[in-house]
Amino acid sequence: MSNQLKNQIFIDGLEYCNWNREILEDLWNGGITAVHATLVYWENTEESFAKIKEWEKLILDNNDIICHAKTTKDILDAKLNNKVAFIFGFQNSAPIANDIFLVEKFFDKGIRFMQLTYNNQTPLGGGCFEPKDSGVSRFGKSVIEEMNRLGMIVDLSHAGKQTCLDAINISSKPVAISHANPNFFHKAVRNIDEDVLINLAKRNGFIGLSLYPFHLKDQGKCKIEDFCLMVKQLIKLIGIDHIGIGSDLCNNWPDDVVMWMRNGKWTKKLDYGESLNKSTSWPEQPSWFKKGSDLNKLYEGMVANGIKEKEAFKILGENWLEFMKFHF
Amino acid sequence: MSNQLKNQIFIDGLEYCNWNREILEDLWNGGITAVHATLVYWENTEESFAKIKEWEKLILDNNDIICHAKTTKDILDAKLNNKVAFIFGFQNSAPIANDIFLVEKFFDKGIRFMQLTYNNQTPLGGGCFEPKDSGVSRFGKSVIEEMNRLGMIVDLSHAGKQTCLDAINISSKPVAISHANPNFFHKAVRNIDEDVLINLAKRNGFIGLSLYPFHLKDQGKCKIEDFCLMVKQLIKLIGIDHIGIGSDLCNNWPDDVVMWMRNGKWTKKLDYGESLNKSTSWPEQPSWFKKGSDLNKLYEGMVANGIKEKEAFKILGENWLEFMKFHF
Repeated sequence: MSNQLKNQIFIDGLEYCNWNREILEDLWNGGITAVHATLVYWENTEESFAKIKEWEKLILDNNDIICHAKTTKDILDAKLNNKVAFIFGFQNSAPIANDIFLVEKFFDKGIRFMQLTYNNQTPLGGGCFEPKDSGVSRFGKSVIEEMNRLGMIVDLSHAGKQTCLDAINISSKPVAISHANPNFFHKAVRNIDEDVLINLAKRNGFIGLSLYPFHLKDQGKCKIEDFCLMVKQLIKLIGIDHIGIGSDLCNNWPDDVVMWMRNGKWTKKLDYGESLNKSTSWPEQPSWFKKGSDLNKLYEGMVANGIKEKEAFKILGENWLEFMKFHF
Repeated sequence: MSNQLKNQIFIDGLEYCNWNREILEDLWNGGITAVHATLVYWENTEESFAKIKEWEKLILDNNDIICHAKTTKDILDAKLNNKVAFIFGFQNSAPIANDIFLVEKFFDKGIRFMQLTYNNQTPLGGGCFEPKDSGVSRFGKSVIEEMNRLGMIVDLSHAGKQTCLDAINISSKPVAISHANPNFFHKAVRNIDEDVLINLAKRNGFIGLSLYPFHLKDQGKCKIEDFCLMVKQLIKLIGIDHIGIGSDLCNNWPDDVVMWMRNGKWTKKLDYGESLNKSTSWPEQPSWFKKGSDLNKLYEGMVANGIKEKEAFKILGENWLEFMKFHF
């Protein structure tokens, strides 16, 4: 990596890997500043606290190259100390079940992102795979208020459309869709309609663009040119400041984990989630984004495809940092 | 009690009391055959298993006059052995959280009724207090199928209207609204519209009529004449076989328990539930239904108000027993 890139802020707004030394070193060697890491999906309260413990150990065991960031200052300090900062998040509200008081308990342990829903309905709102989306519920309102008070980011990835629109309005602090793409780029259950994106940006909300094949035009065969064209169109639609990357990179997992993500504990039948051909394997990543350090390749691709250098740096990290400052 | 009444089946389809020897003796002296008792509302999995343990102790400590019924045969045996049979139920799906496999775990411990929701939205469906009712969700469908398979009654009390209509259709076995009244008798968030009652009965479903003041015309001042008039109208509307009693009797609790029922752990503000004047106390029961044994008074009142004896016996217990036979 060039020295010019070494000084830049690179933030990935969502990854869910089976982390090990090799993956952490790839991020470190790639000069990645910070990663928002998913800890849990379907896990209950107790299991989620246990997962946080596992993470505390992972960080301790690798504290020469990584650290746990609870504030944006921690992220900047990590950069100075040449460490990759990890921000903890939940891709579901299952950890808090129906208990408003657990939000603060998890915040105190460093959780800084929480999705209201993961595909399915929760006590807080509707999921993107539900036939009918309730919007934000009574409990959902209470929880959003509590998250705003504490400084935990309301993440609307995997939520239904009405739940997105409701949460954008209800939240007193700007909300994020940490990992998804616009439907105008690739129509998918998990991607986002234009009107939601416009409403999101109006309230200073944020979208992290996904590199997960099911969210991409032509899936794993998506060309970086097409991805960059979408970025340029999106900048026109909602402005540069509201856009980042949330790659949704899921590396080093066996295939049964993709089925766990889809089925959790909610059904005894098989649900294939986003896979239209009922595949039970992980989809193949595009050649230009296969590992965390590929944010560098993305930078090169963006500049080669007519995105100004300054804008590329904003999208690849600076915007996330500014957005996080609203919260922690 | 007369010998004639002693031989009859009296079943209360829902009570939530702070049970002690005195309350149990009242039921026993009153010749009550069986009571469906609520164990939990907002409690999580672990707390719900703990509550079952408490109940096992209560039953052991009073096994001269009560027993735990897991089948309708257990209820009939209890009658023969001169004991009051208790059927266990949950007024919420909080105990199973998002885990389909917990349904059978709780069934194995004797849980025979479970509400999909309690006022608020759950992962299974919409609550009657939600501004927007999702209907039955993806997980809700899975759970109903599992409850049908096992023989656990789907209870739609405290559910939203769409969730009621969906569940009536989805469930392969008839469902119950264990404790509520028709809205034509007294308009209330917790009471039930005519079209839902008609759909319910068409699918062999069941309603347990409530004696909880907020569900009654003139609340605690409700006259037994008016209650019986409603019963007669309801028989005309949906037929005699679909009607029982689910008194919703909540005796021997301090006032903070009514606020616990309303607020659980879902809000940091106070929610007053069904109390339109923001009372934080238990409402006053009608003079003719203050304790479990008052099913006898209700019998007398029904006969005095033109309900045939045979019909009164059906409503006061026989119908519940027949309905339960669909399930366990």
